[in-house]
Amino acid sequence: MASEKPYLAVTCTAPVNIAVIKYWGKRDEELILPINSSLSVTLHQDQLKTTTTAVISKDFTEDRIWLNGREEDIGQPRIQACLREIRRLARKRRSGDEEDPLPLSLNYKVHVASVNNFPTAAGLASSASGYACLAYALAQVYGVESDLSEVARRGSGSACRSLYGGFVEWQMGEQADGKDSVARQVAPELHWPELRVLILVVSAEKKLTGSTVGMQTSVETSPLLRFRAEAVVPARMAEMIRYVKERNFQGFGELTMKDSNQFHATCLDTFPPISYLNDTSRRIIHLVHRFNAHHGQTKVAYTFDAGPNAVIFTLDDTVAEFVAAVRHSFPPESNGDKFLKGLPVKPGPLSDELKAALGM
Amino acid sequence: MASEKPYLAVTCTAPVNIAVIKYWGKRDEELILPINSSLSVTLHQDQLKTTTTAVISKDFTEDRIWLNGREEDIGQPRIQACLREIRRLARKRRSGDEEDPLPLSLNYKVHVASVNNFPTAAGLASSASGYACLAYALAQVYGVESDLSEVARRGSGSACRSLYGGFVEWQMGEQADGKDSVARQVAPELHWPELRVLILVVSAEKKLTGSTVGMQTSVETSPLLRFRAEAVVPARMAEMIRYVKERNFQGFGELTMKDSNQFHATCLDTFPPISYLNDTSRRIIHLVHRFNAHHGQTKVAYTFDAGPNAVIFTLDDTVAEFVAAVRHSFPPESNGDKFLKGLPVKPGPLSDELKAALGM
Repeated sequence: MASEKPYLAVTCTAPVNIAVIKYWGKRDEELILPINSSLSVTLHQDQLKTTTTAVISKDFTEDRIWLNGREEDIGQPRIQACLREIRRLARKRRSGDEEDPLPLSLNYKVHVASVNNFPTAAGLASSASGYACLAYALAQVYGVESDLSEVARRGSGSACRSLYGGFVEWQMGEQADGKDSVARQVAPELHWPELRVLILVVSAEKKLTGSTVGMQTSVETSPLLRFRAEAVVPARMAEMIRYVKERNFQGFGELTMKDSNQFHATCLDTFPPISYLNDTSRRIIHLVHRFNAHHGQTKVAYTFDAGPNAVIFTLDDTVAEFVAAVRHSFPPESNGDKFLKGLPVKPGPLSDELKAALGM
Repeated sequence: MASEKPYLAVTCTAPVNIAVIKYWGKRDEELILPINSSLSVTLHQDQLKTTTTAVISKDFTEDRIWLNGREEDIGQPRIQACLREIRRLARKRRSGDEEDPLPLSLNYKVHVASVNNFPTAAGLASSASGYACLAYALAQVYGVESDLSEVARRGSGSACRSLYGGFVEWQMGEQADGKDSVARQVAPELHWPELRVLILVVSAEKKLTGSTVGMQTSVETSPLLRFRAEAVVPARMAEMIRYVKERNFQGFGELTMKDSNQFHATCLDTFPPISYLNDTSRRIIHLVHRFNAHHGQTKVAYTFDAGPNAVIFTLDDTVAEFVAAVRHSFPPESNGDKFLKGLPVKPGPLSDELKAALGM
């Protein structure tokens, strides 16, 4: 019987997702309901992931949590919201299931240890993979099998998108209770095998304005953000889903860049203004546009979240040349071997014409 | 008789104006009609001005122009538009005036020499003072006395605002021919004697994206710009005029900053994106907000045109302390004595509390 087990331990991993139609702004701070739908690409877990172990035991006297080896306050409202929600779902399931009566384990306290293999809070969506992993790990130990969108969302809005691989839409929903504000897979992991992601780490420092406070201030003060959410994003969502389904990189890339720029525009329209991009980010933007102009088509696209680091989308046949262009524009003297991480990439040859076009 | 004069020379000066409700985007490229009204503060000519000499002579065989001592192509469309317009107005005036028949001088060619005492094309509105001065000088030599809004506007839209001192509104107008797109003084030069302007020169380099091309691309590609022009600016114009009339610095300063930020937001929403602000500009923005937060009120406001240089508005009683704060945050080692120019300013004492608040 489950109730006699002294402890139950589960370890899972969750991926990072990169939004190409951005989420910025909540219509409900408590339930974490967004003012617009968003769409993201889930990254492979080889390079970026959160690994979370959850253990429940009758010997534990309190819930506890460790992030990257350091104990954190379990009382944080977001973590508490996840715990409450998962226990509510667990109770609901057990009470409706005659053959699986409420086990003791539901009352067990939980210890959680979570580790990211990449910098936290530097605009690399660490909270998304973190809360997706937390939701999934808790669901495993407490025996919850329903949709976890709400649990993950209560931790960090975009975390619900990390519950699926491939291309994922977070539908904003309309209901006041948020039941229809859920993540949905638009296309599976293997849908677009040529698509590649490069992350150009500009700074791994913790950002000055966190996303939660930032988007709250934006909702309160930016006239452009409201317009974006209501009048621009709905059409962009439909357009982006079409590009993904058609594997149309030109359309996908251009709209990804436009939506990143518009998100940062609404940050700048916030008062006081929020700037996540720095001069290096802008040099990368410039580099991408020159690279594309040289080729006469969108071969590479950037997107920036709430931080200066660039996420680059391209196709496999362009990776080598673009990496060479990055090395040309940002010579890696001081970084040495650490300049390139991840899948093996051999920077390709750079034509003199392209070098001239990059102009650096 | 005027027709017997061998030549006529006139020298005039024109001031720079700094928009606090920004002009960005034309609805008619040829007539230079804006998509929204704008409002500016005309600066005193002691520090920043254009000086233009226009000479007409029967001995001149062609029109010629020199800018900052270098001859430029007189065939430039903007200069040609001004010349055509002023000669049209001159002919119109003479033909309607029996006592002042068409003099020979109207057919004389003109030589123009114009000098700015500040960097050109670095986002310091050099084209505004330049074309205002050109329009005025040409009007003098050709004997035109009508409203010069259109002549100046055909050179550079915001130039029409430099025709007046004090606080000046450029009404966008509604007519297709632009006859009602004119500058109008909202309050005279001496209306707000305590108001002070500081220009923090971040870079005197020529900007990467000129205003003309920049705003054209914005109109074509930024969904946020259209919304701003139609739904945000009209209310802001009314609000700003009220603040100016009431000499309400809190309101004036806050709205000035918001409108600057929104203008740069629409630049970022342009595709490819335009960035006029750099990391130093952003440090200045940050400094101003910290300074104001420390004082619990808007004592200083920034605005940025199409370049990284900050224009700071404040009141006379705050200048010394703010200059000290700038020196504290941007120590002038390498600039030496050139750090401060203009009216004598003695940086005031900086409290330890303020230094801590600035946190640099």
